[in-house]
Amino acid sequence: MALLLGIDPGLRFTGWGIIEASGSRLRHVGDGVIATDGAATVPERLKALHDALAALLAQWRPDEAAVEETYVNRNGTATLKLGYARGVALLAPALAGIPVAEYAAKSVKAAVVGTGGAEKAQVAMMVRRLLPGASLRRADAADALAVAICHAHHRATRTTWAAAKVMA
Amino acid sequence: MALLLGIDPGLRFTGWGIIEASGSRLRHVGDGVIATDGAATVPERLKALHDALAALLAQWRPDEAAVEETYVNRNGTATLKLGYARGVALLAPALAGIPVAEYAAKSVKAAVVGTGGAEKAQVAMMVRRLLPGASLRRADAADALAVAICHAHHRATRTTWAAAKVMA
Repeated sequence: MALLLGIDPGLRFTGWGIIEASGSRLRHVGDGVIATDGAATVPERLKALHDALAALLAQWRPDEAAVEETYVNRNGTATLKLGYARGVALLAPALAGIPVAEYAAKSVKAAVVGTGGAEKAQVAMMVRRLLPGASLRRADAADALAVAICHAHHRATRTTWAAAKVMA
Repeated sequence: MALLLGIDPGLRFTGWGIIEASGSRLRHVGDGVIATDGAATVPERLKALHDALAALLAQWRPDEAAVEETYVNRNGTATLKLGYARGVALLAPALAGIPVAEYAAKSVKAAVVGTGGAEKAQVAMMVRRLLPGASLRRADAADALAVAICHAHHRATRTTWAAAKVMA
């Protein structure tokens, strides 16, 4: 059994979701969104995001974390800002001493819906089906839970493969 | 008198430089480069960068920090990675409770050389002239000291302006 934290980072809204994985069985533990004040300076907003993630990590003590490799758009400044939030999202679990996996958005969609080209609404619907009890008040929380589900799948595959190697 | 920390962030190399500013007089205090292991994972590299910046902040206790708004190139993935490092560079001083200013590369060049279109070598030469004793073993350290110098200029202007307002 492992507690997995999924993060869908953004400077304005960062979704988070925690699931419990026992082999292929998944259970919803918690989810939500961290919002930062658009009127604050960027360093203040990054500190707010960092502090919120550090508090989540201290409260839930997940065993592993996974971060969605967010969409790289063509606007350099927007991409850079997304990078700030993602850097902080990758840093917080590392500072807490837990491993952090990264998954491309299309891997996350493939893990949850079965196709890398799925729509956001489809992802949210499948997350609700796979994790009864998830609140999903915002799309970012659904995306974060989807990353956690994706990580649970890849993790289970790795564990099975490692077991097979030991037995060989 | 104020101790100012300049940072020129990058995932591979992050330059840092500390100067002491008394009005318009500047003195070199220290500079160097934080290198992260290219073979490590991104979260590990961000943690290494964060830990090194936190150690610098604890050791020197600067009053203010300034970060160079690094070049946004057209490659989305490279920009995103630069964003990670810059996010961590903006976060560390915020966590240490000191204000962080941001300056575009061309403002830094204008403050040090007098023109926003200056070459890297010109910046390093002027940094050496303005701050005797700077080691500048790597270009990133010269750029970091240049950001600190730029911040000292803007700071002095603000202080004078504030004094003028008080007197008005």
